Amino acid sequence: MPGVPPTHFMFLGPEATFTEQALLTLPAAVRGRRTPARSVPEALDAIRSGEADAALVPLENSIGGAVGITLDELIDGTPLAITREVVIPVEFVLGAREPIAFDQIRTVAAHPQASAQCRGWLRTHLPEATVIDVLSNSAAAISAAKGEYDAAICAPIGADRYQLSLLAEKISDHPDAVTRFILVTQPGTPPAPTGDDVTSLAIFISHDRVGALLAVLMELAVRGINLTRIESRPTGERLGRYAFFLDCTGHVAEDRLGEALQGLHRVCADVRFLGSYPRHRAFDGDRPVPAPAGLSDVDYADAAAWLARIRAGDLT
Amino acid sequence: MPGVPPTHFMFLGPEATFTEQALLTLPAAVRGRRTPARSVPEALDAIRSGEADAALVPLENSIGGAVGITLDELIDGTPLAITREVVIPVEFVLGAREPIAFDQIRTVAAHPQASAQCRGWLRTHLPEATVIDVLSNSAAAISAAKGEYDAAICAPIGADRYQLSLLAEKISDHPDAVTRFILVTQPGTPPAPTGDDVTSLAIFISHDRVGALLAVLMELAVRGINLTRIESRPTGERLGRYAFFLDCTGHVAEDRLGEALQGLHRVCADVRFLGSYPRHRAFDGDRPVPAPAGLSDVDYADAAAWLARIRAGDLT
Amino acid sequence: MPGVPPTHFMFLGPEATFTEQALLTLPAAVRGRRTPARSVPEALDAIRSGEADAALVPLENSIGGAVGITLDELIDGTPLAITREVVIPVEFVLGAREPIAFDQIRTVAAHPQASAQCRGWLRTHLPEATVIDVLSNSAAAISAAKGEYDAAICAPIGADRYQLSLLAEKISDHPDAVTRFILVTQPGTPPAPTGDDVTSLAIFISHDRVGALLAVLMELAVRGINLTRIESRPTGERLGRYAFFLDCTGHVAEDRLGEALQGLHRVCADVRFLGSYPRHRAFDGDRPVPAPAGLSDVDYADAAAWLARIRAGDLT
Amino acid sequence: MPGVPPTHFMFLGPEATFTEQALLTLPAAVRGRRTPARSVPEALDAIRSGEADAALVPLENSIGGAVGITLDELIDGTPLAITREVVIPVEFVLGAREPIAFDQIRTVAAHPQASAQCRGWLRTHLPEATVIDVLSNSAAAISAAKGEYDAAICAPIGADRYQLSLLAEKISDHPDAVTRFILVTQPGTPPAPTGDDVTSLAIFISHDRVGALLAVLMELAVRGINLTRIESRPTGERLGRYAFFLDCTGHVAEDRLGEALQGLHRVCADVRFLGSYPRHRAFDGDRPVPAPAGLSDVDYADAAAWLARIRAGDLT
Repeated sequence: MPGVPPTHFMFLGPEATFTEQALLTLPAAVRGRRTPARSVPEALDAIRSGEADAALVPLENSIGGAVGITLDELIDGTPLAITREVVIPVEFVLGAREPIAFDQIRTVAAHPQASAQCRGWLRTHLPEATVIDVLSNSAAAISAAKGEYDAAICAPIGADRYQLSLLAEKISDHPDAVTRFILVTQPGTPPAPTGDDVTSLAIFISHDRVGALLAVLMELAVRGINLTRIESRPTGERLGRYAFFLDCTGHVAEDRLGEALQGLHRVCADVRFLGSYPRHRAFDGDRPVPAPAGLSDVDYADAAAWLARIRAGDLT
Repeated sequence: MPGVPPTHFMFLGPEATFTEQALLTLPAAVRGRRTPARSVPEALDAIRSGEADAALVPLENSIGGAVGITLDELIDGTPLAITREVVIPVEFVLGAREPIAFDQIRTVAAHPQASAQCRGWLRTHLPEATVIDVLSNSAAAISAAKGEYDAAICAPIGADRYQLSLLAEKISDHPDAVTRFILVTQPGTPPAPTGDDVTSLAIFISHDRVGALLAVLMELAVRGINLTRIESRPTGERLGRYAFFLDCTGHVAEDRLGEALQGLHRVCADVRFLGSYPRHRAFDGDRPVPAPAGLSDVDYADAAAWLARIRAGDLT
Repeated sequence: MPGVPPTHFMFLGPEATFTEQALLTLPAAVRGRRTPARSVPEALDAIRSGEADAALVPLENSIGGAVGITLDELIDGTPLAITREVVIPVEFVLGAREPIAFDQIRTVAAHPQASAQCRGWLRTHLPEATVIDVLSNSAAAISAAKGEYDAAICAPIGADRYQLSLLAEKISDHPDAVTRFILVTQPGTPPAPTGDDVTSLAIFISHDRVGALLAVLMELAVRGINLTRIESRPTGERLGRYAFFLDCTGHVAEDRLGEALQGLHRVCADVRFLGSYPRHRAFDGDRPVPAPAGLSDVDYADAAAWLARIRAGDLT
Repeated sequence: MPGVPPTHFMFLGPEATFTEQALLTLPAAVRGRRTPARSVPEALDAIRSGEADAALVPLENSIGGAVGITLDELIDGTPLAITREVVIPVEFVLGAREPIAFDQIRTVAAHPQASAQCRGWLRTHLPEATVIDVLSNSAAAISAAKGEYDAAICAPIGADRYQLSLLAEKISDHPDAVTRFILVTQPGTPPAPTGDDVTSLAIFISHDRVGALLAVLMELAVRGINLTRIESRPTGERLGRYAFFLDCTGHVAEDRLGEALQGLHRVCADVRFLGSYPRHRAFDGDRPVPAPAGLSDVDYADAAAWLARIRAGDLT
C-alpha cells in the first residue's frame, strides 16, 4: 500500500546474483521478506496482484539483458511506480571451492554474458581454461561450490553465499560498468522530493522523429531539466508510433518539472509517468549537477513573483 | 487613472495627420479632449505627469520615422503601459484648393517621406511638377489650402479638415502599407483578455546574440506563443547588451503567456512588460491564428489536470 | 576485404536461434560458410583478426539481451563497419518431439527470456506445465528433440532444424516484436547509396546533457535528417562523458548527411561513424519517410546553385 | 561598375547632415564627386540608372526615420548590393551665428526629431527658449547662420559648414546613440573577406511566425553564425508573408556562412542577399566576437577532413 514501507520484496532471481546484492543495500529489504522471481514479468505481476509490496528489477543492465523486458512491462498492463533506484558496480570475481592456482584451473563456469565481459582477463590469466556456459551467475557459483567445475565467475554475493575462495576480484574488462536497478511498487503519492531526484517517463511520439524529439528536448531544455538517460524502443514498424524512455533530473512535485511534464503531455502522443525518486549517489561527494544560469529554483520563484506583479499592474 | 476610461488624449501632432486620423477611430477620443503634442516624448511625458490620460503615438510607422523614438521612450524613464493598438492603411491623397487639371499643377507640397512613398505615382502623373518639402502632412494640406502651392500630398483627414478638392486617392506606391499606433497610459491592471490579444515586451540580452535569441524564441515556441513583430534596437556597441522589441500573441493574464513570460524573465538579462491589449482586426473576417496542435487552451487544461492526477498518485 | 563480398560469416551462436535465422535471409550467407560464435565479442574479434569476413550480431534484441555488449564492442577496440541490417519478427513456436495434446505437456524447456515473453500464452494454454530454464532457444529445441522435456519454446528455425512437431506458432505475448541484427565487416568504402539508407553513429558528449543533446538534434533537424533510434549507454558516472547511439536516415556519401556529420563532429566531444547501409524494408510497400518540405535533394541542389550565383555577384 | 572603386557618390541630402558627415569618413568619397539626393529612393535610383556609382543612405537611424524606406527600397525593384557600412555617433551640437549666452537665446531651430532627442538638455539649459521646427539638421544650421533664429541644433558638420559658433557639444539625451549608414552599389562580386565581416539579408517567411523564425535561427546557430540585427517589417496583414531583415557575422564567401545561407534558402519562402562587407570597427581594440567552441574555422576544416576520411572508409 502506498505510504506504508514495503515489507515483502520480490527480486529478479535466482538468489545470490547482482540483483539480490543490490536489494541488500536497502535496510528495509534486509529486515523484510525477500522472494526471488523467475522473471521480470513475474516479479512485477506479484506487485500488481498484491502478493508482494515492492520488486527490485534491473533497468539498465550490462549483464543479464533484462532491460528491454523491464521497459516493456512498465508500459504494458496496469501502471506501476518506480520509488527508488539502486546502482551498483558490476564487479565480477573468480571463486572456487578451495584455493587453486590459476594454472590448475581447467574449467570455469560462467553465465555467457559474464564470461563475455571478462574475456580479456580470461585470455590473459586463464588462457587454457574451458568456459562452461551456465544459466546465471549464481548457477556458476553453485556449480563451483559443488565441485562440478574448477572455478566460477560470479557476483561477490555469490562467492560469499556459497562460501567460495576468492581467487581474483574485479576481473571485468569494463571496470566502470554499473548496473541500475529500480524498486517498483503500486502507484501512490511519490516519495517526498529530496532536492536531488530522478523522474522516469515513457513517451510516445508519432512519425517524423527528429522534429518530434527535438520538440520534446526543447520542453525539457527551456525549463533547465537535465536528461540523464534516453532510449528508444524498437516497435513494430508499421505502427508509426515510437516509444522513448527518459530519465530526467527533478521531481514531479516541483514547479519546474511539473511545467515540463505538462509541456510533454501537450506535444507527445502519450506520456506515461513512471515515478519520481531520489537519485542514487554514486560516491561520497557526488553532487547534483547545478541548474544552468537562470534556471535555479530561486530564478523560478523570482519569475513567478514578477509575473504576479505585472498582472496586478505593478510595472516598477 | 487605471480602470477609468481616458477622457483627455494626447497625440503626436500636428493636427490632421495620420495620427489624428487613427485617434478618431476610437469613440472615447471622438467624445473626449484631444491635444496634439510636438513630439513623442512630449506626448508620453504628459501621461507621466498626469496632464493627460492617454497618448496615441506611432509604433511602426512607414511615414514619419517616429518608431525609434517611441521605443526608446517606452524603455527609458518611468514605466508606461500600452492598452490599445490602432492600425490604419497609409493612403495618401492629392488635394488642392480647387479642382485643377494635372497638367496645370506646377508645385506639390509634401512631407519628404510622403513624396518619397508616392514617387512612382508622381513620375507618371505629374512629371513636370516640383515637389516642395514641408514639415508634415498637415503642413502640406494647409499650404495648399492657403494657395501657397498648387497641390498637396496629405492624409485623407488633412484634405477633409482643410477642405481640399480631392484630385487623386491612394497614390502611394505601396498600396498595402499600414501604420500602427499605440495608445499609452499609466500602468494599471491590463484590459481584460478578449481571446485575441497582443502582448508587447522589451527584452534585454547579453552578448552572444544568436544563442540568447534562440533561447528566447524557444521559450515562446514551446508554449505555442506566436511572435508578430521583432525588432532589435541599435545600442552603443561597447555595452554588450541588446534590446529587442517583441509583440506576441496572447494576454499576460493567460496561463500560456504567463508561463512564457516567466521563462523569458529567467533567460533574459531583463524584460520590460509593455502591455497586453486587444489585437487590431485588419478586416472583417480577420481571425486569430489558431494555436498549433497540442498548444490550444484545451490542451493546457488537459495537461494541468493530468499533472494534478499524477502528483496525487493516480497513474491510471 | 572491403569491396569483396564476404564468404565466411560469423554469427552469434548457438545454431538454430533467431540470429542464424536472420543470417539465412542473406543469399551470400546461404552460399557461404557460417560459423557460430560463443559471444558477440568473439564474433567481432574474428572479423578484426581476419578469421572471417563478416559477422551477424543482434543490435536491438528483445530476446537475448546482447544489445549492450554489441554496442560496447563497436565503440571499443579497433573500428569495424556495419554494412547491412536485418530485421526479423520474434515469432516463437512451441515444438515437441511428437504431436502431443496440450494437457499432456508437463515440462517446457525455454530460455528464460523466451518464456518471459510467452508468459500470457503459457498461462492460458499450459497452466499446469513447469517451465525449465535452458541456456538458449536452440538448447530448448535440442532438449525437446532428445525427449528430455515434453515441449520447447524456440525459434521457427530451431523447430525445423531439430525436426520438432509444431504444436503452436506465434505464441509471443508481443506479436509486433522484432529483432534487429547488423552485419559487421572491416572498415572500407561503404556500400553505394540506395536512396533509402541508414547511418549508425556513436557520439560522445560532455556533461550538461540536455543542452548538448539538443545541439546534436538541431544539427540533424536543420538538415532534415531523421533519427530512427537513439540510445544512451550507462557509463561510470564519475567520467562526465556520455555515449549515445544514433541511427539516422541517409548515407554518408550524400551532401545532406555529410553536412550533418560535420556538424556533429564540431559539437560533440567525439563521433564514431559505424556505417551507412540500406534500410531493411519491413514489408512490401514500405517506403522511406519523405524529407520535410524544403529539405529534399532537389531543395539542396537549388540552394547550392543559388549560393554559387550570389557568390558570383548575380543577385537577379 | 563592380570591381572599379566608385567615384561619384550619392547621399541622402540635404548637405551638412549626419549622412554627409558619414560619407566624408570614406577617403574615396572625399576625393570623388558627392551629390545630395532628395530622398532614399532617389539616391538608390541614381545607382540603378548608372547615374552614380555608390549611394550612402541611413539603415538604422535614430534621427530622420529613413530606415523603413531604405529597407523597402532594398527589397523592391532591381537588386542592389551593400558594399560597406559606416557607423557614427549621433552627437548634436548647439550652434549660433555668434557667441551668445544661454539666457539670451529665445529661439532654437531644430529638426523635430533632433529637438526630441535633446529635450532633457533643452529643458535644463534653455528652459525659456522656443523650439522652431525645420525640415532638416542642415536647415537648422542655415537658418541660424542667416540669423533667422538665435541658435540651432545640428550635426557637427553643419556647424562647421555654416561657420556657426559652438555653444555646446554632445547635447543629446542619449550619449551612446549611433546611426548606421550603408554604401550601396550595383551588384557584383562582394568585397573580399576580411575576417570580420557582416552579411545583410532580407528573408521572407510564411504565416506561423515563431516556428518559422525559430527554424531560421537554428540554421544560423548550428553554424555559429551570430545575428547582430533583426527587424520585422510591417506588411499588409492579409498577405500572410512576413519580411525580416537580418545582419549576420561572416562573409558569403566563407564555408560557414555559405552553408547557413543555403539552409535559409531551403527553409524560407524567399531570401534576398543584400551584401557582405567589412564590419565597422566602433573603436580601437574593437574585436570580432570569437566563434563559439567547436564552430571556429579550424573546427570547420577538421570536420571536413574527417568526413573525407570516413567517406573513403578510413575509420581510424
